[in-house]
Amino acid sequence: MDDVVIRTARREELVDVTQHVEAAAVRAGVREGVAFVWVPHTTAAVTVNEGADPSVGRDLLAALRRLVAASGPWEHREGNSDAHVKATLVGPSVAIPVHDGRLALGTWQAVFFCEFDGPRQRRLCITVTPAAG
Amino acid sequence: MDDVVIRTARREELVDVTQHVEAAAVRAGVREGVAFVWVPHTTAAVTVNEGADPSVGRDLLAALRRLVAASGPWEHREGNSDAHVKATLVGPSVAIPVHDGRLALGTWQAVFFCEFDGPRQRRLCITVTPAAG
Amino acid sequence: MDDVVIRTARREELVDVTQHVEAAAVRAGVREGVAFVWVPHTTAAVTVNEGADPSVGRDLLAALRRLVAASGPWEHREGNSDAHVKATLVGPSVAIPVHDGRLALGTWQAVFFCEFDGPRQRRLCITVTPAAG
Repeated sequence: MDDVVIRTARREELVDVTQHVEAAAVRAGVREGVAFVWVPHTTAAVTVNEGADPSVGRDLLAALRRLVAASGPWEHREGNSDAHVKATLVGPSVAIPVHDGRLALGTWQAVFFCEFDGPRQRRLCITVTPAAG
Repeated sequence: MDDVVIRTARREELVDVTQHVEAAAVRAGVREGVAFVWVPHTTAAVTVNEGADPSVGRDLLAALRRLVAASGPWEHREGNSDAHVKATLVGPSVAIPVHDGRLALGTWQAVFFCEFDGPRQRRLCITVTPAAG
Repeated sequence: MDDVVIRTARREELVDVTQHVEAAAVRAGVREGVAFVWVPHTTAAVTVNEGADPSVGRDLLAALRRLVAASGPWEHREGNSDAHVKATLVGPSVAIPVHDGRLALGTWQAVFFCEFDGPRQRRLCITVTPAAG
């Protein structure tokens, strides 16, 4: 398992981590398989979306704020229930195919660590498993 | 594949299944790999979120009810379209790394079976695959 | 990695791709393992939900339209930010267990390619990894 440290700078932020995942896939030396990206936190998540135009990520964070109001009402007393809900909506894991020893991302795809309750120091875990045959 | 029976008691409920997933990972005897949790139902899901304070789970269920009104409007005649939509938003699978023979969960993370149309008897399937190298 | 071409006919559409995933699992010759379905696009996704009654899929698309208004407000200038947000909410990957050489889908489950910005020619990638032991 590869462990990467991510430092976020704002309460909500997308951090492009594609190069970390790609590097882990190359280090694993797998020609055909799957790279698993895991976020070991409950107020952050991981997604794959357009990496070329940063306005897509800003639109995503704005849409999530409209869907899950920070103001609640919430029962949990730490003031970050919106971040917990967003973490589940986006999800803690993605599974990306490895093909010919590289991440098989589409033309416009990038992997994003999603911070919903920063700034904090965070971790990202990457595990690569080989395909059958 | 490990098959676990889950009995839910309410229409909507989070059930902490971390110990079942941990037990399956240990049984598989894998030092480094990935544990896949699968929900073979269309009105339930699986997520990972905070396990220490049960108010987080209640906030999550309440937020999902605000997002997807049970009253619709819906075309499907069985009265549970809200549960089908929530199942897709949360998702039927998570992939959790196994490190040193244990689930590599973060400090606050627990695995939750998400019931959206109970009470019912449900199943949870766990498969463990070894990492490369 | 199996690569399947999907042609969508509308802006938003669910396409049942269960048979493609099942065929890839059989071709891989794996008795116990996991089939990973991957969408290499940023305005499409993959989910698992009820396959018997097509009104469930229509309810899902309608609920997503209510959650993420096409009209925004959006910063991204291509007019498809709603599709990018839906892609992240539904997700680019699912991991389905393979048991006794077949996909271990529940009675009502089918795998759906989710088009949110069609009609287009799309791809679906399937990788199968063997379980431990």
